[in-house]
Amino acid sequence: MLRKILIANRGEIAVRVIRACAEMGIRSAAIYSDADRHSLHVKKADEAYCLGSDPLAGYLNVHNIVNLAVATGCDAVHPGYGFLSENPELARACVRRGLTFIGPTAEVIARMGDKTEARLAMQKAGVPVTPGSPGNLENLDAALRCAEEIGYPVMLKATSGGGGRGIRRCDDPQALRNNFERVISEATKAFGRAEVFLERCVVNPRHIEVQILGDHHGNCVHLFERDCSIQRRNQKLIEIAPSPQLDEAQRQYVNGLAVLAARAVGYTNAGTVEFLLDDDGRFYFMEMNTRIQVEHTITETITGVDLVEEQIRVAAGFPLRFKQHEIARRGYAIQFRVNAEDPKNNFLPSFGRISRYYAPGGPGVRTDGAIYTGYTVPPHYDSMLAKVIVWALNWDDVVNRGHRALRDIGLYGVKTTIPFYQEILRHPDFRSGHFNTGFLESHPELLNYSTKRRREDIAAALAAAVAAHAGL
Amino acid sequence: MLRKILIANRGEIAVRVIRACAEMGIRSAAIYSDADRHSLHVKKADEAYCLGSDPLAGYLNVHNIVNLAVATGCDAVHPGYGFLSENPELARACVRRGLTFIGPTAEVIARMGDKTEARLAMQKAGVPVTPGSPGNLENLDAALRCAEEIGYPVMLKATSGGGGRGIRRCDDPQALRNNFERVISEATKAFGRAEVFLERCVVNPRHIEVQILGDHHGNCVHLFERDCSIQRRNQKLIEIAPSPQLDEAQRQYVNGLAVLAARAVGYTNAGTVEFLLDDDGRFYFMEMNTRIQVEHTITETITGVDLVEEQIRVAAGFPLRFKQHEIARRGYAIQFRVNAEDPKNNFLPSFGRISRYYAPGGPGVRTDGAIYTGYTVPPHYDSMLAKVIVWALNWDDVVNRGHRALRDIGLYGVKTTIPFYQEILRHPDFRSGHFNTGFLESHPELLNYSTKRRREDIAAALAAAVAAHAGL
Repeated sequence: MLRKILIANRGEIAVRVIRACAEMGIRSAAIYSDADRHSLHVKKADEAYCLGSDPLAGYLNVHNIVNLAVATGCDAVHPGYGFLSENPELARACVRRGLTFIGPTAEVIARMGDKTEARLAMQKAGVPVTPGSPGNLENLDAALRCAEEIGYPVMLKATSGGGGRGIRRCDDPQALRNNFERVISEATKAFGRAEVFLERCVVNPRHIEVQILGDHHGNCVHLFERDCSIQRRNQKLIEIAPSPQLDEAQRQYVNGLAVLAARAVGYTNAGTVEFLLDDDGRFYFMEMNTRIQVEHTITETITGVDLVEEQIRVAAGFPLRFKQHEIARRGYAIQFRVNAEDPKNNFLPSFGRISRYYAPGGPGVRTDGAIYTGYTVPPHYDSMLAKVIVWALNWDDVVNRGHRALRDIGLYGVKTTIPFYQEILRHPDFRSGHFNTGFLESHPELLNYSTKRRREDIAAALAAAVAAHAGL
Repeated sequence: MLRKILIANRGEIAVRVIRACAEMGIRSAAIYSDADRHSLHVKKADEAYCLGSDPLAGYLNVHNIVNLAVATGCDAVHPGYGFLSENPELARACVRRGLTFIGPTAEVIARMGDKTEARLAMQKAGVPVTPGSPGNLENLDAALRCAEEIGYPVMLKATSGGGGRGIRRCDDPQALRNNFERVISEATKAFGRAEVFLERCVVNPRHIEVQILGDHHGNCVHLFERDCSIQRRNQKLIEIAPSPQLDEAQRQYVNGLAVLAARAVGYTNAGTVEFLLDDDGRFYFMEMNTRIQVEHTITETITGVDLVEEQIRVAAGFPLRFKQHEIARRGYAIQFRVNAEDPKNNFLPSFGRISRYYAPGGPGVRTDGAIYTGYTVPPHYDSMLAKVIVWALNWDDVVNRGHRALRDIGLYGVKTTIPFYQEILRHPDFRSGHFNTGFLESHPELLNYSTKRRREDIAAALAAAVAAHAGL
């Protein structure tokens, strides 16, 4: 087994990996920027190394990270999600220096990271993809011809994109003309590559993704699907496992399809195959994420499998501990991304000092957070403060539990998405399990929640208390 | 369904009931003493009523509690555990005032609260009990004759005792002579009744208890057993579900036996049948607890059933939502009672201000607490600050997870039992699942933990960090 893992990440996913290491008896080494010196992952790791004053450079410097891992006696690197997790250079550099990279091979990362290559690989394996350009587009004219063929609306996408960036919907030729240069410019800036391609736009699909685990002994299994249809501008906010929108035949089909897709590219370690599901019940391959995902928690909750531990075991060369038929799911899990944003103010980031924080608790509630009372959320990173995961045996109960858990949190000092999520949980379409990726856009009234309710409740309780004290 | 429940308790169990109410859409009304005005249950309840300056009187006054419930429009009372939970007067007073008492009937509470009556009822139902006096003992002579007959060592017990109080082991006639008046005097003070009886002492048994749920429609089921053998002076510290010490036949036998016992007394609502298991594999009925227990959490964790919600549903007249064959268990759960005590100083209570508190998190961890950063633990109540519950698919993993979760807690300002539990988790007998109620007494070396380790770890991490910062 591995002895010491360098965690090339920060925040809650770094804490998550530290916890897995602690349970496995593996030492953990954290890295951090000056801005992150008070972060929870620095406090919780067995060792922590500062990578300088730039808030981002340290987390993105393959060379320094691998050097540090070697110099501090680590035998493996866990990339988390974001940052270098889908950069094949880190995987390659690890191998070169004799370190175990906890993820798939550099080749698979590179291949799946190239969206047109991934599409081609999937088509070859018999996995349905949306109609689109056969490869990257040479110029605007080629794009216009291709769009005419597959039919509007189309999605213009950066070949190296991901995480909802480098992607634009075009409803007509004019929109395609307007967006073409823009997406290329965005892609160049964000991913360092200018290639773009086209796909038919599946209007308001459901986002269904399947968790995959493969080892180096020829075993590859799924751990059921997640429904991530509750999105805002392609950013997932609430995730659910399993999807309450699939029947058992659909579930078996798409889960099996994901395993075929993963096997076709020789996938190892944890990964996710993402599909769109249209109103006619057709699934289309969207992309494969070659890393642990933010929402892996809900899969852990319904299956009982610790995905980060399995990642580490598989990377260390061990075979998977279970066959497909030994993986069972139970009940429903929902994850809420508690973001430091003000939904009423166009989701403007709300960084600052957490004056008080009480984690939710009680039955069926898990919290993966990176905050504490007195912590100042630095403005350099993404706005996610914590993930709250709830579980119950059935759908109605898990929705009620979610509502209770969000009420249970005490988080003061910054604005968060919590009251917005409470509105979503009250909506009859959500409660009945019917929603697609257009849900939030088509329900702007969800933003009309009162921010006063909470204070009024407290005032009422106080008044009652005072009256009772006087009277009894 | 009920509309508003008065919670006749405090601390973590009051918070637990508030959470169940919130998930069910029921309003919660808390009560509190002056000493408890900053307690979490007061903050979390929809309404809260102060019952005066005496720290205990308010929680123990049946008349005032029932009056308050009626005056504030509650339609039910939840007693929690401890305080009035096993006092048939509260159940009776509720019925008299048209309130629903969330628990079994006053008759069953009274009958099971009388230990000699309970023994007789069980014997009649064919449930094995330890050899003992046929009823209460008239005097010391009768006790000595009876002890001679059943054989030493014997347990001298208060008929109204419970929770480890009013109980003494006597190894010979001299010990029985010494203890007889003492136990009678204790029992009179603590329970208001002087009756005592004798049982053969089962030396170092395992403590196995079975969770029961019965409704008012003739249904009664078990929710598997808990192993509470890790005790100190009859106080449970660590509880496990299911027991790692039973094979499947033993499990089915004792779980079935508990249902027969509960049915024999017409049991409704949640309850626990406690058994002793001796080295020869024989089970003996010990007592029945007619309330929710501190350790109900681990049963919830392995079955997915919310026991407090089921208590409320059953009390409101609904039938159980599941048949016996629909209740499945999965994996192992362990509960740690985090007590404000100093194990190295004879478990002396360590009350005071919690200067900082971070709840543990991540996969398979649940916390039921009643503390927060800045909370001052009042000296008037029991020393339990929080319950940490861990779960995993198998025994080895849950032990490792327990160790990690205890390390994950940040709790400063008072001494706690956490480092002692970490020692227990490291012990090979515990890890291999072999322990009985004599485990802690026979391993005094478990108290020899170093309190410095933590600080040294931090210092080492800091030194490494400084070195790295300088060098890179």
